[in-house]
Amino acid sequence: MNIIEKFIEIKDYFSPRIIGEINDVFIKLVKIKGEKIPWHNHKNEDEFFYVIEGKLLFEIEGKDSFIMNKGDIFIVKKGINHRVSSDEECKVMLIENKTTAHTGDVKSEITKSIADQKHI
Amino acid sequence: MNIIEKFIEIKDYFSPRIIGEINDVFIKLVKIKGEKIPWHNHKNEDEFFYVIEGKLLFEIEGKDSFIMNKGDIFIVKKGINHRVSSDEECKVMLIENKTTAHTGDVKSEITKSIADQKHI
Repeated sequence: MNIIEKFIEIKDYFSPRIIGEINDVFIKLVKIKGEKIPWHNHKNEDEFFYVIEGKLLFEIEGKDSFIMNKGDIFIVKKGINHRVSSDEECKVMLIENKTTAHTGDVKSEITKSIADQKHI
Repeated sequence: MNIIEKFIEIKDYFSPRIIGEINDVFIKLVKIKGEKIPWHNHKNEDEFFYVIEGKLLFEIEGKDSFIMNKGDIFIVKKGINHRVSSDEECKVMLIENKTTAHTGDVKSEITKSIADQKHI
């Protein structure tokens, strides 16, 4: 399975899709364009971001925001309020626990259930 | 943290290094060149391979072997005997449980403990 080919199957922004699972963890791909992700946190789960293509603006409550470029990784520790956005399309790999809710306890128009994030 | 820059810090082949952790999982980088990895399996843990650069020969007991190219991912399910090798240098990201032993129950000259795989 090739990451770049898998991204071609993903048409919607803010819609993570599962491409594999290892034990208690999902590997997901997501395309981000715009600012629709609300501030949120994951009370019990760390979250791994890896920028495959594009630029991602990463905001963390109480800290300086920063840009992630291609090849950059960042781990948000559990309980930390954060949001990400991108002016242009950005392709991201996520590694999350199977229990991780998309936008934590916050529900918004883009929030996806695990069922919505089905395997591709 | 940039993946390509992190690989510059890794000098030795067959020596995975931890670059991050999310919950019960380690994110590791490893450079592979040659055929020193013995056949092994991980009794209780799936293992995720992602080729960042180069080509990786993947062998699975009882199945056809295959080449992984840049951008390819593959998950070896728990208990499955496997080994990987590469003629030229190949850069790989691994996602493994914290309990995963480098070469399973098999010990060889290249086997590294978790302490040997220390954070960079």
